[in-house]
Amino acid sequence: MGEYLQDITSPRELDNLSTKELDEVAEEIRRKIIVTLSKTGGHLASSLGVVELTLALHTVFKTPKDKIIWDVGHQAYAHKLVTGRYDEFSSLRQYQGLSGFPKRSESRHDALNTGHSSTSISAALGMACSRDIKGQDNDVAALIGDGALTGGMAFEALNHAGHLGTDLTVVLNDNEMSIAENVGAVSSYLTKLRTEPMLHRIKEDIEELVNKIPAIGSRVIKTVDRVKEGLKYLVVSGVLFEEMGFSYLGPVDGHDIKEMQKSLEYAKNLDGPALVHAITTKGKGYTPAENAPKNFHGISAFKIKTGESKRERELPTYSTIFSRTLVDLAEDDKDIVAITAAMPSGTGLDKFKTEFPDRFYDVGIAEQHAVTFGTGLALEGSKPVITLYSTFLQRAYDQLIHDVALNEAPVTLAIDRGGLVGRDGETHQGVFDYAYLRGIPGFTVMAPKNENELQHMLKTAINYPGPVSLRYPRGMGAGVPLDSKLEELEIGKAEVLREGSDLAILAIGSMVMPALEASKELAKQGIEATVVNSRFVKPLDEDLILDVAKEHDQILTIEEHVLQGGFGSAVLELLADSNVTDIGIERMGIPDEFVQQGSQDILLDHYGLNKAGIKEKVSKLVDNGVDRSG
Amino acid sequence: MGEYLQDITSPRELDNLSTKELDEVAEEIRRKIIVTLSKTGGHLASSLGVVELTLALHTVFKTPKDKIIWDVGHQAYAHKLVTGRYDEFSSLRQYQGLSGFPKRSESRHDALNTGHSSTSISAALGMACSRDIKGQDNDVAALIGDGALTGGMAFEALNHAGHLGTDLTVVLNDNEMSIAENVGAVSSYLTKLRTEPMLHRIKEDIEELVNKIPAIGSRVIKTVDRVKEGLKYLVVSGVLFEEMGFSYLGPVDGHDIKEMQKSLEYAKNLDGPALVHAITTKGKGYTPAENAPKNFHGISAFKIKTGESKRERELPTYSTIFSRTLVDLAEDDKDIVAITAAMPSGTGLDKFKTEFPDRFYDVGIAEQHAVTFGTGLALEGSKPVITLYSTFLQRAYDQLIHDVALNEAPVTLAIDRGGLVGRDGETHQGVFDYAYLRGIPGFTVMAPKNENELQHMLKTAINYPGPVSLRYPRGMGAGVPLDSKLEELEIGKAEVLREGSDLAILAIGSMVMPALEASKELAKQGIEATVVNSRFVKPLDEDLILDVAKEHDQILTIEEHVLQGGFGSAVLELLADSNVTDIGIERMGIPDEFVQQGSQDILLDHYGLNKAGIKEKVSKLVDNGVDRSG
Repeated sequence: MGEYLQDITSPRELDNLSTKELDEVAEEIRRKIIVTLSKTGGHLASSLGVVELTLALHTVFKTPKDKIIWDVGHQAYAHKLVTGRYDEFSSLRQYQGLSGFPKRSESRHDALNTGHSSTSISAALGMACSRDIKGQDNDVAALIGDGALTGGMAFEALNHAGHLGTDLTVVLNDNEMSIAENVGAVSSYLTKLRTEPMLHRIKEDIEELVNKIPAIGSRVIKTVDRVKEGLKYLVVSGVLFEEMGFSYLGPVDGHDIKEMQKSLEYAKNLDGPALVHAITTKGKGYTPAENAPKNFHGISAFKIKTGESKRERELPTYSTIFSRTLVDLAEDDKDIVAITAAMPSGTGLDKFKTEFPDRFYDVGIAEQHAVTFGTGLALEGSKPVITLYSTFLQRAYDQLIHDVALNEAPVTLAIDRGGLVGRDGETHQGVFDYAYLRGIPGFTVMAPKNENELQHMLKTAINYPGPVSLRYPRGMGAGVPLDSKLEELEIGKAEVLREGSDLAILAIGSMVMPALEASKELAKQGIEATVVNSRFVKPLDEDLILDVAKEHDQILTIEEHVLQGGFGSAVLELLADSNVTDIGIERMGIPDEFVQQGSQDILLDHYGLNKAGIKEKVSKLVDNGVDRSG
Repeated sequence: MGEYLQDITSPRELDNLSTKELDEVAEEIRRKIIVTLSKTGGHLASSLGVVELTLALHTVFKTPKDKIIWDVGHQAYAHKLVTGRYDEFSSLRQYQGLSGFPKRSESRHDALNTGHSSTSISAALGMACSRDIKGQDNDVAALIGDGALTGGMAFEALNHAGHLGTDLTVVLNDNEMSIAENVGAVSSYLTKLRTEPMLHRIKEDIEELVNKIPAIGSRVIKTVDRVKEGLKYLVVSGVLFEEMGFSYLGPVDGHDIKEMQKSLEYAKNLDGPALVHAITTKGKGYTPAENAPKNFHGISAFKIKTGESKRERELPTYSTIFSRTLVDLAEDDKDIVAITAAMPSGTGLDKFKTEFPDRFYDVGIAEQHAVTFGTGLALEGSKPVITLYSTFLQRAYDQLIHDVALNEAPVTLAIDRGGLVGRDGETHQGVFDYAYLRGIPGFTVMAPKNENELQHMLKTAINYPGPVSLRYPRGMGAGVPLDSKLEELEIGKAEVLREGSDLAILAIGSMVMPALEASKELAKQGIEATVVNSRFVKPLDEDLILDVAKEHDQILTIEEHVLQGGFGSAVLELLADSNVTDIGIERMGIPDEFVQQGSQDILLDHYGLNKAGIKEKVSKLVDNGVDRSG
């Protein structure tokens, strides 16, 4: 192993390799990815699917002069391996290691930082237009998956590119699924292109036929003429893209390097926008992943031989508890419907899908539509639970204001992966939601202290006659016992977990349990802190907070969220508006920077957002408090 | 005038009218709209274009049981007139009057509050799905313009609807332009459908032809068979929509009530999603508007005879000064490019378009794409100025984080209509931007005190090597002299305009001049206020603010923005983080509610965000201040 790959420090070294040698490089890349990811985890199936495609792209488009834009970017491992990052590859997705996505700061071959879906054509078109304005002569290619094509932004970009006629190559990496089974009419259309080769010949057939017809009578001649005239529109294959102004090439076997090179070269040399439709197999070359690609999308460390996860038996995740609770509630309430944007498994909704297929909607990677679609359902009396990761909900910010809130639609937003999400890094952290949600009139913004409270909050949210969001973290719950009878919580009521006189902690969501644990240990050192489970970012429990403010010299707010405009700021606003000035207020949270990749534990520790960090902060505040009260 | 219309209190009264009578109603509606809007202003051209379409819709879809969803909704005037709002129609767009958009609280015939583009199919599909789950039998129709179809969200919804096969009627109101000339490949496609009737016949022609061919030899027979087999795919007309899973009907003359009724009835009775392609003329029936529909999109009061605006000669608007300055800067700097999302005229970029057509991009109603497209341009060394209304920038929130900020792309966001926008009401207020922008790491967030400072800020933003936003209000500037030589401002530096000892005002953007004027009048009453032109929401001028805090007992922050998480909250955060506790901080801004429609003056007065309101607030604070300092 490793005859070629480890010596490749630049994609230019691929240029002189024969197809056979490139195939060998492909095999080396595959082995390297499998071996590395068996230890680090990562996006295995999509990365294995584009190995040959990556080599073909890099031999046709000469980065960094030419640009290759990877949509989402979790399939760019092969790209990393041929652009000088072989030696560091074992640090993939680790704290301070190689990013799991393209990153400009890592390599001049990475033209764009990515992580979310459907952005590549927009950015690539911008780069192509900048080239044209500046009179430069480089080429630009965007690689986008069939799943990402369901995002409306990709359509906006295709529509604009087709209109401009700018020179640009879009490679559609069609692996017949995104993260889950693909949804949408366009997906069915792609399937048709893939599976009915006959379509490609029809236009030629008709031309042939027309040319063979003897002219018998003027009526037929007229018809023949009309048909001839019309034939130019009979672009059967790829018509959807042709109508958008693209030249369509394909479908091409994405694992055949030579064929891919030919098509890419042709597309590159065409004037105007071209779309190369490449067919690839997710998980290609690793049998367990080829057989069950869904299970090998984003994975943790695994045993190479079987593909089994190495992860030990763990506590149930928040997603699991959410999923179970939702199914239980939906048994009794036929109005409950569930919506996901291409994440049935990640959000735990797959269980709901199995139980209630008629009340389950996977809308594709289309968060804007998901939220407004849910609004429509809610306004007609259904009870939609829209389940999204915090980072992806950002896509639907305007729909939350303009559709949900202005229509006072009683939707439940189940916001999974709120807070630090770990190894996916900067693009995936869910740290802005409290701030932007609490600014929207009429929204109720909640976060449970543990998975048991999550259950009660979910019931509360679903039955509340207005928009409610409910945010919970990635990963395991606290392992607390789960109540079997669910109660609706009173909106805007916090819970005092502990009383003390030295300082009051107002914690929210995932920070409540660490704050409670810290305060228990601090008590042994003689520091007595009040601990409040705030439950609501909006509406705040104003009475309770003002009481707490009266009884303490110092308040510490804690949230797994940016400090700009978050929960702590809401507390500051309340106290200022209530003319409470004689109190120290300290806010713990995430400072004004993008949060790097690394395990959740490392990151939380980095920001002091755990028991140890809270203990340290409280000790310091209480020590200094003597001065402050003077 | 008014034989039928004034007596129509429900659309059911249309049911028994003959086509001729409906045509007369249409004429009455048209006159009523023209006469009313000549006084109130409003969206004239689009409303006149859908009068017959509205009557056809209402005779086929029986609201409120059936649902009619109006995309954007500024074309729903005829709908309002036939659903019981004839008598109130003169209050259109006035403070506490009839909304210029559909509004659930106004009528049970308004199924959805709207204002932004491209949401109707999503909401309608949600309503249709809720119907199916509940086993109800009503019908749902969404009306969407060809302009709104460029929004990716509409595509997300089409894709999902086609996939589900839900019973739903989408009416494409094709008036060959949205607000400006339409852009995009889909637009060219629609033109083709409209202008080449031949296309509709080709499929039939080929079938006819094939049937006439005598079987001459097996080779031809084989070809004929293959062609016959393939013919089912040769759906020439409406293929784009057919491929998305819709039945396509059209094009139909949208001004022919009978034809429209037939098509709508057919679509309604079809199983599954159907798209009716209606061709309408914007401004129909009012010659000045038909001749120059762009000028009659959103208009103020006008003279009916000529179409001339009644508005008196006014001071130049912020948009005008922005536009001129940008053109001046772009003369000298060839890297400057301008991007609009279907608003070349509203944003003032039409001037730039004329001067520099090669560096101007109208991307259609596609804010997400606009921002990421700009990112691509910026990363390749161009200097994009993305010009959007504040309310529409909400659509691109994730792109600001994920594309602009994470890539540290030096784009300039020129945010027009920041603050209260007046008569368009709730959906269009631009009051969230400070909050969500300042939460994004790496963003610089500015707002000028007047149109002269706008010029300097624009130069500053364009030349700053990172993302900068620049927010200015709708409407006229202050009429101040304009510097001819532009200077780059120091980032994060505020400006003290006035010094006083009683209280310090930290104002931002549009609130600076009213604060200054108020403080001058207050001085005559013996109240001396410091007034700071804060200039930057981010980074704050921390040194200056902390100095001001030291020297005053009270600070008053003022912003034309929601109070949750805005500029005032940033000041609260700074003071809390700096342990400044012995000071009163009062924040003026917009409370936690959606801002109604009304003139900007009325609304600003309502919230005390003008000279009078500021004077009153300061007087009160200074009177109470004696207690506070004790």
